[in-house]
Amino acid sequence: MSWNRRHVLSLADFSVEEYNTVLQTASSFREVLTRRTKKVPTLQGQVVANLFFEPSTRTRSSFELAAKRLSADTLNFAASTSSITKGETILDTAKTYLAMGTDMMVIRHKEAGVPQAIADEMDRLNVKVGVLNAGDGQHEHPSQALLDLFTICSLMDVEKPRSTLLEGKKIAIVGDILHSRVARSNIWSLTASGAEVHLAAPPTLLPKEFADFVKTSNPEISRKLFIHWTLEPALIDADFVMTLRLQKERMTSHLLPSLREYHQQFGITRDRLKLCNPDVRVLHPGPVNRGVEISSDLMDDPVLSLISQQVTSGVAVRMALLYLMGGGKVG
Amino acid sequence: MSWNRRHVLSLADFSVEEYNTVLQTASSFREVLTRRTKKVPTLQGQVVANLFFEPSTRTRSSFELAAKRLSADTLNFAASTSSITKGETILDTAKTYLAMGTDMMVIRHKEAGVPQAIADEMDRLNVKVGVLNAGDGQHEHPSQALLDLFTICSLMDVEKPRSTLLEGKKIAIVGDILHSRVARSNIWSLTASGAEVHLAAPPTLLPKEFADFVKTSNPEISRKLFIHWTLEPALIDADFVMTLRLQKERMTSHLLPSLREYHQQFGITRDRLKLCNPDVRVLHPGPVNRGVEISSDLMDDPVLSLISQQVTSGVAVRMALLYLMGGGKVG
Amino acid sequence: MSWNRRHVLSLADFSVEEYNTVLQTASSFREVLTRRTKKVPTLQGQVVANLFFEPSTRTRSSFELAAKRLSADTLNFAASTSSITKGETILDTAKTYLAMGTDMMVIRHKEAGVPQAIADEMDRLNVKVGVLNAGDGQHEHPSQALLDLFTICSLMDVEKPRSTLLEGKKIAIVGDILHSRVARSNIWSLTASGAEVHLAAPPTLLPKEFADFVKTSNPEISRKLFIHWTLEPALIDADFVMTLRLQKERMTSHLLPSLREYHQQFGITRDRLKLCNPDVRVLHPGPVNRGVEISSDLMDDPVLSLISQQVTSGVAVRMALLYLMGGGKVG
Repeated sequence: MSWNRRHVLSLADFSVEEYNTVLQTASSFREVLTRRTKKVPTLQGQVVANLFFEPSTRTRSSFELAAKRLSADTLNFAASTSSITKGETILDTAKTYLAMGTDMMVIRHKEAGVPQAIADEMDRLNVKVGVLNAGDGQHEHPSQALLDLFTICSLMDVEKPRSTLLEGKKIAIVGDILHSRVARSNIWSLTASGAEVHLAAPPTLLPKEFADFVKTSNPEISRKLFIHWTLEPALIDADFVMTLRLQKERMTSHLLPSLREYHQQFGITRDRLKLCNPDVRVLHPGPVNRGVEISSDLMDDPVLSLISQQVTSGVAVRMALLYLMGGGKVG
Repeated sequence: MSWNRRHVLSLADFSVEEYNTVLQTASSFREVLTRRTKKVPTLQGQVVANLFFEPSTRTRSSFELAAKRLSADTLNFAASTSSITKGETILDTAKTYLAMGTDMMVIRHKEAGVPQAIADEMDRLNVKVGVLNAGDGQHEHPSQALLDLFTICSLMDVEKPRSTLLEGKKIAIVGDILHSRVARSNIWSLTASGAEVHLAAPPTLLPKEFADFVKTSNPEISRKLFIHWTLEPALIDADFVMTLRLQKERMTSHLLPSLREYHQQFGITRDRLKLCNPDVRVLHPGPVNRGVEISSDLMDDPVLSLISQQVTSGVAVRMALLYLMGGGKVG
Repeated sequence: MSWNRRHVLSLADFSVEEYNTVLQTASSFREVLTRRTKKVPTLQGQVVANLFFEPSTRTRSSFELAAKRLSADTLNFAASTSSITKGETILDTAKTYLAMGTDMMVIRHKEAGVPQAIADEMDRLNVKVGVLNAGDGQHEHPSQALLDLFTICSLMDVEKPRSTLLEGKKIAIVGDILHSRVARSNIWSLTASGAEVHLAAPPTLLPKEFADFVKTSNPEISRKLFIHWTLEPALIDADFVMTLRLQKERMTSHLLPSLREYHQQFGITRDRLKLCNPDVRVLHPGPVNRGVEISSDLMDDPVLSLISQQVTSGVAVRMALLYLMGGGKVG
């Protein structure tokens, strides 16, 4: 077990040991979640503030539940009813929650870098408050990539999920790569785990410069990252297919012809999965546009689709992250 | 005590035994609510998700408090900040909350049948999650009718509220019957308890076809259900008068002349209650338009008005329902 | 220790003993907040309803956290999603929460007098429910003034904060006095504690009639209250400078020339503080418009600015108020 982080902001510099620490910790919390009383007293009397400057029900509920199951008190901040509209800066909002006695902050913002800026400020103030990035712009969404990793590794070894299980696996990530913080975080975690990652999207959603940038920012992963502007080469022999949510507003901004054409070219269907490894599984971070990113019947397939398991993994992984960050604080 | 339901969706097929089980259980929780520490550990570690696709403060707070007093953790979903706007289907939202580990779902939706559809899906998935209808369109609002029943029966015998106390009583339901889920649920519970139910409303809000439909759908109740297009015959010798909330938008859709005229013809006042049984009491599901459905001074009358008791009953009845549904799960 | 109040609505008639009771109680709760488990079981099983008819994240979170740290259950009511829009009166909303079993109500409303009206109604109904004014129009915001008092007195004697420490101190209150409920509450608490209060603002935001009115309503304080239409005389030898939030809408209503001019004339900067006592400290109730009421670097000064301590004090003071009001209920 290796953990020295106060904050979880990006997976770009996560080590294999850290991935495994998260996976093992999440695994033990998954066991807690099968009990009738799905609660542990770990964070009793501590306060987890969910500062969601961008609205989200799903992710906020998942973090809120994770915090409650660790017996923490939670505070929910929603931008719509906030002082933000009164002219207060984001850092000032964060410092207000700090001054109230918040122990950990879970932050979502539509601008990349906001969680990092808040974490930097907390460090500068020398307060032992952990900051967790719950999605910042098109930058990163580390807890999503970690729950994807946990879902995949648990499928391969439910007792001992570990990142080395991904060694040599082929994983396709399909869809709006350019605008996806989920894709970015997954590229780090999957390549670090030894998988081959194949990105597939129309060129407007996956410019060549994107892959170039990623590869040059970390030459290590350049051998493991491949880009395709058609779907088929990404799917051939793939072990896992990750589909990404398509923001419908992409269409109005002329990056896409129509949802129907997108589905014809990049939608995942049972038929297309025949190109993959026979044991292939499909993931999607949700919420799903049925019949766009993925066909409706495939989404509901209890074997092929891991979408429901991803949501369940989310609570366990977020409990693990809060636990590890809070433990860092105790020490 | 008789209880075999996982879900509470409609009162159309509730048995007398089931009504009595709810009344007795609510009665024991009412006792808890008189203590200084108004809490029991029954649902500790369980999660009750309030999925309110239609906004409501009053009902949502009542369910939230009932869940908290059973020591459950609660998750609140409000449509306004939700993924619904992102194109996710309602069933997918429910399945997301299921996958997070929700044990019971309390659902309100402006379309009739949504709670039933979610319950069907939960059963199809073979998960032991209870679904409670907190109001679906113009269909049913069972917990409201059960709290009305509890309020009335407790008035007649506070120690042993039971549905047979209503045998032979005359109950007037006055107002916008056509659009009222509260009226529909009450028709089932009151007639099943042996009361005579007299509906009174202008013909636009109580079409003849409505009563015909109800009677043919359950011939049992046709002897006990009467319709009137004026107020007086419903009030004569009535033991209880239930007024319904009037949606002001009915007027703009030409179903009503004006609020003043409505009040003149169907508003409940002290004076009009002289037609009733001398012990008559008045109910209203709230929120009240003072001076429209009911005169302001009558609403505040501590003897004649049961409105405040209805709200108090609401918490006890909802605790009872969550307890019984959760107990069904334990077994 | 002296406390006989069920409600906290205004500081106009607070006694020195009452101020000291709040300060001492808050002091003991501050100690609780330094522990790892920042929670006491004082209000276990009781319900604190936050009825915020005017939106606020900061104050609502502070009260919510105070209630949770006393182990109370909390209900949050936000006007935007409420029955208010359905035509229910405010008193009816309060009575609904009462009937559900609320033990204490924390109320914010844009109209002065609403908390008082609700408290009067609770007393009339002879129910032992405490009402706390969390800001009503331009009238009062007592918990803010009490946390300001606690912050100042704790600075002077952290072990035994007491109001007599303010005897003979000079305190400047700068800004939009006319529209500020914070200023009004502070005028009562600071003058009652023996301080000299110097108000400074442009005449449009501090009409002569304002001071006249305050003085005649309580002749006791007329010796201790001074008004200035320029900044300098208020700052000279001041021990504390309280800046007030400037509502930007004041400008559009022609009460102010521009934010820049306001800052030039009344903005607090390091340079201007040279007029004050060398140990001067600056307060602001937040949220701050950086560079308007106060210069950005001064706001962040860890010695000169007490803004962060005010927020921390807020939780302790609100715990104290809920505790004292709840204890009043027990007795």
